[in-house]
Amino acid sequence: MIFRQLFDYESYTYSYLLASRAGGEAIIIDPVKSNVPQYLKLISELDINLVVAIDTHVHADHITGLGDLRDVTNCVTILGSQTKADCVSQKIKDGDKITADQLTLQALYTPGHTDDSYSFLMNDRVFTGDTLLIRSTGRTDFQNGDPKQQYDSLFNKLLRLPDNTLVYPAHDYKGWMMSTIGEEKKFNPRLQVKSESEYIEIMKALKLDNPKLMDIAVPSNLKCGR
Amino acid sequence: MIFRQLFDYESYTYSYLLASRAGGEAIIIDPVKSNVPQYLKLISELDINLVVAIDTHVHADHITGLGDLRDVTNCVTILGSQTKADCVSQKIKDGDKITADQLTLQALYTPGHTDDSYSFLMNDRVFTGDTLLIRSTGRTDFQNGDPKQQYDSLFNKLLRLPDNTLVYPAHDYKGWMMSTIGEEKKFNPRLQVKSESEYIEIMKALKLDNPKLMDIAVPSNLKCGR
Repeated sequence: MIFRQLFDYESYTYSYLLASRAGGEAIIIDPVKSNVPQYLKLISELDINLVVAIDTHVHADHITGLGDLRDVTNCVTILGSQTKADCVSQKIKDGDKITADQLTLQALYTPGHTDDSYSFLMNDRVFTGDTLLIRSTGRTDFQNGDPKQQYDSLFNKLLRLPDNTLVYPAHDYKGWMMSTIGEEKKFNPRLQVKSESEYIEIMKALKLDNPKLMDIAVPSNLKCGR
Repeated sequence: MIFRQLFDYESYTYSYLLASRAGGEAIIIDPVKSNVPQYLKLISELDINLVVAIDTHVHADHITGLGDLRDVTNCVTILGSQTKADCVSQKIKDGDKITADQLTLQALYTPGHTDDSYSFLMNDRVFTGDTLLIRSTGRTDFQNGDPKQQYDSLFNKLLRLPDNTLVYPAHDYKGWMMSTIGEEKKFNPRLQVKSESEYIEIMKALKLDNPKLMDIAVPSNLKCGR
């Protein structure tokens, strides 16, 4: 399998390029617009054919590469059915499967960071977007975020995956690339709560500044970054 | 296997934490001093026991965590036999094997970036330090660097590994985590030369500024960062 995790230094975003084999079809998750030329070069060098570009949700901290990639490669663009973006070619719902050659991603609806947040399960690994981060969780204070929904997404969906499931998030801010469900269960400070209400209190008390690109990124991303 | 690639945002350094199993022995490659508390926390959480800390060479762009890790964990510290540092507990040479539980690293002497540069081969992957970078190679203009030696290390050692060998370098500056020997053979611009003399010319023409931490990092690293 071809599996490439790619980092965007401006927004601390991880994008993922996946393909089952050289010469075959590829999927990209959470591409960043400014890195699209880099992705296209790598796609060409790896001799793969981009057929699907997915955003785990409408991002507020970077501009998506979905539109640019679609324009160049004619790939299918995907967001969850709850999204307000009307630029994608496919809107998926919980349980849907996305395939490319031998790859299959299963969509898990995991709202809470936003109301259109999805995670994607692929065999031994899960792409958790901004729902589950390494030793953290995504903020829940805008774009219809909801700490109660996020608690449910975390404790009743993601943490029920096998402990050895590899966790690949959409961001990290300390230089870590991946984790496992078992590790996050034990060591993620936000997942050590005793109740849903305690989680909601923690998230409501965060009082974070808005992402600096939010006023540009969200409207742009509702148009797939075009 | 536990395999963690960890990134240092200040110096764009990749460090690698390896262990064959939870509860077992671990090796760290190219640790950064300022991240040692983070490594120790992760080592504890993963329930592994650090027994070896290796620098691929005496770094000029960050201060090594070798000394601090040794002080806390009593791990063996390793550099190549050509190093001027006299603080390590073991100096290895080409072909030597380093083991921890089921892990075995084979040392490959790959001078050129510095005269004490080593790469480490572990089954399907090679840690290339500053010798082979993703689509680039390490500079050769200080610490007894030598483009002629680097050409030999690249073309007569690293590029002779199987094409599907995974390449894990000590740095990347564009957000890429890994590559393969086959990819670098085909697409690394510096490896498309027709002769050793052409490679030497390219490297001599680079005229790079010194790393900003060089005057602090090199003397400090000769004392294992202590």
